[in-house]
Amino acid sequence: VLGGRVAERNAAFLARALGRRGVRVERTLVVGDDPDEVREAVAALLARGPDLLCTTGGLGPTDDDLTMRAVAEAVGRPMRLDESALAMVVERSRAVVRRRRVDPLVLERIRRKQATLPDGATVLPPEGTAPGAALTHDGTVIVVLPGPPWELQSMWAAAVEADPLRGLFARGGAPPSRTLRLWSVVEAELVEVLDRLSAPDRASLGTYTKGGELEVVVPEHLAPHVTELIAGAFGDALFATDERTVDTIVAARLAGGGETLAVGESCTGGGLGARLTEMAGASTWFVGGVIAYADRVKERLLGVDPAIIAQHGAVSEQCARAMAAGARAATGADWGVAITGIAGPGGGTAEKPVGLVWIAIAGPGGGLAVEHRFWRGDRAGVRARSETAALHHLREALARDARTVTDP
Amino acid sequence: VLGGRVAERNAAFLARALGRRGVRVERTLVVGDDPDEVREAVAALLARGPDLLCTTGGLGPTDDDLTMRAVAEAVGRPMRLDESALAMVVERSRAVVRRRRVDPLVLERIRRKQATLPDGATVLPPEGTAPGAALTHDGTVIVVLPGPPWELQSMWAAAVEADPLRGLFARGGAPPSRTLRLWSVVEAELVEVLDRLSAPDRASLGTYTKGGELEVVVPEHLAPHVTELIAGAFGDALFATDERTVDTIVAARLAGGGETLAVGESCTGGGLGARLTEMAGASTWFVGGVIAYADRVKERLLGVDPAIIAQHGAVSEQCARAMAAGARAATGADWGVAITGIAGPGGGTAEKPVGLVWIAIAGPGGGLAVEHRFWRGDRAGVRARSETAALHHLREALARDARTVTDP
Repeated sequence: VLGGRVAERNAAFLARALGRRGVRVERTLVVGDDPDEVREAVAALLARGPDLLCTTGGLGPTDDDLTMRAVAEAVGRPMRLDESALAMVVERSRAVVRRRRVDPLVLERIRRKQATLPDGATVLPPEGTAPGAALTHDGTVIVVLPGPPWELQSMWAAAVEADPLRGLFARGGAPPSRTLRLWSVVEAELVEVLDRLSAPDRASLGTYTKGGELEVVVPEHLAPHVTELIAGAFGDALFATDERTVDTIVAARLAGGGETLAVGESCTGGGLGARLTEMAGASTWFVGGVIAYADRVKERLLGVDPAIIAQHGAVSEQCARAMAAGARAATGADWGVAITGIAGPGGGTAEKPVGLVWIAIAGPGGGLAVEHRFWRGDRAGVRARSETAALHHLREALARDARTVTDP
Repeated sequence: VLGGRVAERNAAFLARALGRRGVRVERTLVVGDDPDEVREAVAALLARGPDLLCTTGGLGPTDDDLTMRAVAEAVGRPMRLDESALAMVVERSRAVVRRRRVDPLVLERIRRKQATLPDGATVLPPEGTAPGAALTHDGTVIVVLPGPPWELQSMWAAAVEADPLRGLFARGGAPPSRTLRLWSVVEAELVEVLDRLSAPDRASLGTYTKGGELEVVVPEHLAPHVTELIAGAFGDALFATDERTVDTIVAARLAGGGETLAVGESCTGGGLGARLTEMAGASTWFVGGVIAYADRVKERLLGVDPAIIAQHGAVSEQCARAMAAGARAATGADWGVAITGIAGPGGGTAEKPVGLVWIAIAGPGGGLAVEHRFWRGDRAGVRARSETAALHHLREALARDARTVTDP
């Protein structure tokens, strides 16, 4: 996998997409938009003899978009105008032409450039205006993908169904690993438990900290044993042993129970709502809420008593509880989740330092509030951890009978 | 630069941080958590003779955290317990120990592991629990950084002040390039304008599409000429020629004018608020707003007349205008921004397809509403483009006299 400047997000997407199909990404290489570097990088990766080589980026209309030519040179093939690709490009660029005045000669040049592929390549239909390509060279399937993440992702979804890739994945077989997800466990505790495994087994695990969660990636053949070991040691802290995340667990539980959720967000500024609505179909259970960044908005829209803020401050148990109850009451949702904290870098005091975050849940059966002190993390880290923690408290509250929600 | 699974975000951060100091990232390599692969990759990158080599990740307490050893092997040095690193690790892990029961023997092993560095390396103080390291080998400065992005970023900020890196950056000199940012220009139009440059000059530019914006990265020596060319062709569509983004421009304008902003978000679910509050200090001008995902919340909290939704639908000019005015009125802010649209994948109709988004601005001098049809992009793309477009409409409204805001 290699590409240009936005390559990181694409690399992450491809690693996930391939991992799900049992294909391991052995190497990711990011190089500059220089024709020699790209050609050299493709050649070097091909020399390792991979089953699959993906390139991303460099398919646009400008002169620094040179990936097709670099790939052709690396595999020693001429470039050739592909008439079917040209037809696709003309079709896709029509919407732009309708809206803009572009010199027809320039447009013709751009279209021909984007439709010129390495000889013998299969064209992958464009999602934006640039077609991709797939070709086979010395047993390696080469897939040339566009740089804009959504174009790449749409094309990938289509390309996976294409013949060369289908053959590849048929060989791949079952997923080679399983991801165990833990909440409220620190890595040192995990080390102690994993000591019970043999050294080679231990070395085959991957452990990752991720916004307050721990992920343990376990080879499939060890999964039953390691899952049992971790479940025995940490109980409910092991919250998922499959593709589920805390986001999808909460969504499924709310949708399944026909219940709705509203948020009241201060320091996260809308981030929890944005994260929840990344999931398509969230409208069946998420109604919205209030971004209560200023104290005035906490009072006006969430009905927080000004006396609470005057007496306890906006970052307090009392305010968090009032915000969660207010989110519920103001929107008519079944559940309210509130986050109020000090994300930093400024605003901290000795008594209320940066990283202090109160999270509250209000539900049909009552409410709860939990204090967090995220001493690890900058502003973005504190905000992301707050969102994740809020979802876990909600998950736990939803897992209990809603009538009996009380403080932990 | 190389590392493990969350390497993508770190690679992007380092490329930006180094770019600002005039250091070009020639190559990014991502490899698996395998000791042989890491050692081989470090050796291969060192063989290219770079000024700087950064590794990220693999400094944790588990057995798959093996970067220090791999680096030591690649440069042919023994590993050595660093007493000052050990003292730092003990100090940093105290907070964890207070909260958790971890076997003291396990803890001692973890601490010693994390404090053992390649011989002769300078320890970089830990931000989490894992120290980093800096060493020089055959003229290359090697910096070993942790994987969690905030730990890496904090350590980087500290490490940049360290002696080996300061020497490196002193050589780097002025930034080698400037970024021109355009809004509402498509790449084909840009190609036409860039045709007026010589072919080598054109090839030295990098152009990137980014959520509806176009970025042109221009070598410093061409910057005046290319800036003039693009400004002449596109006028105000060229909105920044320095480090500013639409986010920082809007923030500076609001803060400078002592004005406040509120949002009313439907399809973006809080994403605009989250994006604005990524900027520290946003509380001086951002008050919050309403995530009006459900129609009921649009009516109850933003005061949208139910008749508007019944007659025109929630994705309509009328609803967007009412939401922007409602965000302003409900919070008492000077400006209101509203976004309502169909992000997909479901919910589209022939008349109102996926990608249709109405954006409205309400200000002291009146309001405006703009229809967008984001035919490129999936759910995440439509949402991100909507947020960016909303900020541009706000930027334009703020740039005019606030008293004279009218429809474009």
